Amino acid sequence: MLDKIDLSKGFTKKESKKLIENLGMELSALQRECKRLQIPVMIVFEGWGAAGKGTLINRLIQPMDPRGFKVFTIQDESEEEYMRPFLWRFWTKTPAKGRIHIFDRSWYRRVINDRMEKNLDKDELRNAYNEIVFFEENLSLDNNLIIKLFLHISQKEQKKRFKKLEASPETKWRVTENDWRHNERYDDYLHVYEEMIEKTDTEFAPWTIVEATDREYAEVKILSTVVTAMKNKIAQVEAAKAEKPGETLAGKVKSPYKTTVLEGIDLNKSLTKDEYKKKLKNLQEKISKLHSELYKQRIPVILAFEGWDAGGKGGAIKRLTEKLDPRGYEVIPTASPNDIEKAHHYLWRFWNAVPKAGHIAIFDRTWYGRVMVERIEGFCTEDEWKRAYKEINEMEEQFTNFGAIVIKFWLHIDKDEQERRFKERMETPEKQWKITDEDWRNREKWDQYEEAVDEMIVRTSTSYAPWVVVEGNDKYYARIKVLETVVNALEERLNK
Amino acid sequence: MLDKIDLSKGFTKKESKKLIENLGMELSALQRECKRLQIPVMIVFEGWGAAGKGTLINRLIQPMDPRGFKVFTIQDESEEEYMRPFLWRFWTKTPAKGRIHIFDRSWYRRVINDRMEKNLDKDELRNAYNEIVFFEENLSLDNNLIIKLFLHISQKEQKKRFKKLEASPETKWRVTENDWRHNERYDDYLHVYEEMIEKTDTEFAPWTIVEATDREYAEVKILSTVVTAMKNKIAQVEAAKAEKPGETLAGKVKSPYKTTVLEGIDLNKSLTKDEYKKKLKNLQEKISKLHSELYKQRIPVILAFEGWDAGGKGGAIKRLTEKLDPRGYEVIPTASPNDIEKAHHYLWRFWNAVPKAGHIAIFDRTWYGRVMVERIEGFCTEDEWKRAYKEINEMEEQFTNFGAIVIKFWLHIDKDEQERRFKERMETPEKQWKITDEDWRNREKWDQYEEAVDEMIVRTSTSYAPWVVVEGNDKYYARIKVLETVVNALEERLNK
Repeated sequence: MLDKIDLSKGFTKKESKKLIENLGMELSALQRECKRLQIPVMIVFEGWGAAGKGTLINRLIQPMDPRGFKVFTIQDESEEEYMRPFLWRFWTKTPAKGRIHIFDRSWYRRVINDRMEKNLDKDELRNAYNEIVFFEENLSLDNNLIIKLFLHISQKEQKKRFKKLEASPETKWRVTENDWRHNERYDDYLHVYEEMIEKTDTEFAPWTIVEATDREYAEVKILSTVVTAMKNKIAQVEAAKAEKPGETLAGKVKSPYKTTVLEGIDLNKSLTKDEYKKKLKNLQEKISKLHSELYKQRIPVILAFEGWDAGGKGGAIKRLTEKLDPRGYEVIPTASPNDIEKAHHYLWRFWNAVPKAGHIAIFDRTWYGRVMVERIEGFCTEDEWKRAYKEINEMEEQFTNFGAIVIKFWLHIDKDEQERRFKERMETPEKQWKITDEDWRNREKWDQYEEAVDEMIVRTSTSYAPWVVVEGNDKYYARIKVLETVVNALEERLNK
Repeated sequence: MLDKIDLSKGFTKKESKKLIENLGMELSALQRECKRLQIPVMIVFEGWGAAGKGTLINRLIQPMDPRGFKVFTIQDESEEEYMRPFLWRFWTKTPAKGRIHIFDRSWYRRVINDRMEKNLDKDELRNAYNEIVFFEENLSLDNNLIIKLFLHISQKEQKKRFKKLEASPETKWRVTENDWRHNERYDDYLHVYEEMIEKTDTEFAPWTIVEATDREYAEVKILSTVVTAMKNKIAQVEAAKAEKPGETLAGKVKSPYKTTVLEGIDLNKSLTKDEYKKKLKNLQEKISKLHSELYKQRIPVILAFEGWDAGGKGGAIKRLTEKLDPRGYEVIPTASPNDIEKAHHYLWRFWNAVPKAGHIAIFDRTWYGRVMVERIEGFCTEDEWKRAYKEINEMEEQFTNFGAIVIKFWLHIDKDEQERRFKERMETPEKQWKITDEDWRNREKWDQYEEAVDEMIVRTSTSYAPWVVVEGNDKYYARIKVLETVVNALEERLNK
C-alpha cells in the first residue's frame, strides 16, 4: 500500500505560508473548543527515521496554547516500565479531559521493533495489534479524539537525508549505524509498516499517511488533518449534547489533502507487437505448467480483475486462460446482484464462488463493487461502504490463511484513451455490444471513481492480497504485466 | 464461569405446559413478523453431549411454519468443505432475508475439536475466535439476528444420561467411546467451553447458557430466549424504519430466565475457632515464604476483593497481609473517583496502580464498581456498563499475558447475616465508623445488586482471572478460604 503512494507532492514556501497561517489560527481556536467541551486529544507521530517527526511536531505546536498540551518522546522502556504490562506506560499517559497529548513515536514502537528483531510470528503480531486496537477503542468510546499520522518518505529520500545530516559536524551524531541498517532494510520495514497500518486503521482511530518529502506539504497536511479531525469531533460532541447524533455524519468535513495512487502511474509504458508475441508465448507456456503444479499441491488461486470500463479486463483474462486446462479454472463474471443475491450479505455470493484447493478462480469484477459503484451510486449507505474495507481485508486474509494466493488487478487507462476505445467500439459492428449508455454515464463520474479507487487501493492493498495497478493504455504491455505478475506469484509460492 | 452456575433449576410438567403453549404461540407470530420485516435469523445450538440438543431443537421448531426454517446438522467436514476456507461452509449456509436457519452444532465445533485434539496454542485460538466474531459481526451488521444457546449439564448428569442410553438396546449405539472419553475429560472441556463463550460473547451475538438438567426448564428458557431476541430485533428494525433508533434501548425486553450464581452458594460452611487458628498459622507461614519466591521470580500478583457491605473484606485482607513483608505488597482502597480520576477513563486509575513484577497489589473494591454501583445508581449509561465486561476481561487478560496472577474474590453473606452485622456495628462503639446511612440504602437495593453480581460473575469469570465466591457467613471459614485460594494459586505457578 505504501509503495503505491505518490510521494512527489510539494508546495512552494509562498503557497504554503498563507495556508499554514490560516490553519494555525483555526487550530488555536479549536484547541480552546476542545478544552471547553472537555475532549481529550491524542496525536500520534509515527514514520520513517529522518522523515521529520521532530520538526513537524514543533511546527504543529506553534499555534497552540502551551498550557494545554504535552509532548511525550517514546524511547526504550525504563526499568519501571519494563516491569509492568506493555500498555501500562501509555495508559498512565492518557490525557485528562480537555488536554492534548502528542506522542513522538508511541505504542506502535515496540511492536515494530519486536517484529523486526524478535521475528514475532503472525499470530503473536495479530494479538499485539488487537491489544492496541482495543486500547484505542476503549479511549475513543470514552470520547478521546485519536489522530494517528504516518510520515512517509522513500528509501532514496531517506538516504539523502542521512547523508546530509552526516555531512555537517553538528548533526553527524544524529545518524547511527542502526539508521543505516534500517535504510538498507527499507523494504522489510515497508512491509511491516504496511501491516501495522492495515491492522490498526480503524474508524475510531484512523491512520493518515503524510507524504513527507516536502516539509511544507507535510506541515499543511498535518495541520489540515488535525483541524479536520477536531472539527468533526466537536460537531459530534455538540450533536450528542443536543441529542441529534444523526446530524453528525452528514455534516462531516474532509481534509482536502488526499493520498493518491492513480495520479502517479506512468501510462506511457508499451511493448512492440514482436516483443509482445514472444513474451506471451513464453508466459503462457509457463503458466500452463505452473497450473498443474498448483493442482498437485492443492493451492487455490484467486485473481480479481477491476478497472475502468474498456480498460482491457476481458483481453487480459483471455490471454491468461488461453492455454489453461479448463477443468482447473473458472471465470466468474460479476453483474449486478440478482434477487437471491440481494437477499443475502453482499459477500455471500463471493464466498459461494471460493475455488477449491488446487483451482483458479478469476473474477471479472468483484466484491470491490461495494466501495466503487455501490458507494458512488448510493446503493449502500456511507457506513456500509466504509466498513467494507475492513470486511474485505478480513475475508481476503481468511482466504490466504487457508493457503490461497490472492492477487487483485486494477486495469488503468486515462480518460482520453477510454474515449478513443468507446468510439472505436461504437464504430466497429462486432464490438458494439460491448458499449452501453451506462458506460457513457459512468464516464461522467470519472473523478468520483478516481477518488474511490485511490481510497480502495490504499485501504485494501495488503501484504497478503496486494493490488497491482496495470498501466493499460498499451494493451500489449498490460496483458504481459498481468501474466508476468501471476507467473511470478505462482513461482514464488511453488519454489518455497 | 460455567462451574459456578446453578444447574438445579426445574419445572414440573404442569407448570411448564402452559408456559410452553404461550411462548409457542408468540414464536409463531414472531416468525411471521421476521418474515414480513425480512430479518434473517440464525439459531445456534452448542453444548455437552447428551445435553438434549436434538430433542430441544425438535421442540423449538414445533410451533414454527416449516416453510420458513431449515435445520443444519454440522458434522465432520466433507471433502468439498475441507478444500475451502473454514468459514466457507457457513457463509454458504447463511439464511436469506426473512428465513430462519437452525444449527445443531456450528462454526464452534471445529474450534472446540481442534483445541482439544490439536492443542491449538493461545494465539492460534484467539485468532480462530476473532474470525468467528468477525463473521458474526458482519452478518449482524447486515441485519441478521444471531441467537446462540449453550446447553449446560454437569459431569454427573452427563454420565447418568450416557448410562441410561446404554441400558436400552435401541439407544445403545448412540453412546460412543468418544462420548465416554469426553465425560472423563469433562473438566478440560469445561475450560475450553468457558474460553469459547468468553471470547465470543458479543453484544451483537450473545451467548445464552441454558441450564439443561431439566428438559422442561430448558425448553422454556430456549423458547423465551428466542422470543425475547426476536421481539427486540423487530423493535430495532421498526425503530430504524421510523428513524427513531434511540427508542430501541429503552423499550428492550428481557427474558425472565436468568443464569444465577449466588443462589446456589451454600452459606452454612464453617470452621471452629481451633481449626481456624491452626490453619491460619500454617497458611500465613506458607504465604510469607511464597511471597519472597514471587519476588525472586518477578511475578506480579493482583488480588481483587469485592463483596456485600459487611461481607468481611477488611478482615480477610488483614489476615492475608499480616505476615507479609510490607515492602512487597500494597493495599489499594477504592473510593468514589476524585476529580482527576473522573477526568480520565474509568480504568485509568487501576492501570496506574498495576503492581510491578514481583509485587502484590490488593484491591479493596475494584474496577468492578462499573458494573455494580455505577450500573445500579446510573452513574454510567447502559451502553457503558454493558461494554465494561469486555473491557475488563481484556484488561485482565493483558495483565495475565504479562505474567501476572489475577484472582478475584466475592465475599458472600446472606441478607440476615448482613443485618446482624450492621446492628452489631451500630451497637459497638469502636465499630460505629464502619457503618453509614449509605450502607442501609445499598441494602435496600439488595435484589438489584444480586442481579448485577450474578451477571458480573458469569461474564467475567475467565480461565485466566477467575472469580472465587467465598462463603462468608462464618468469618473463620471465609478467611481461610481466601488464604488457601491464594496459597494454592501461588504454589501452582511457582512449582511449574
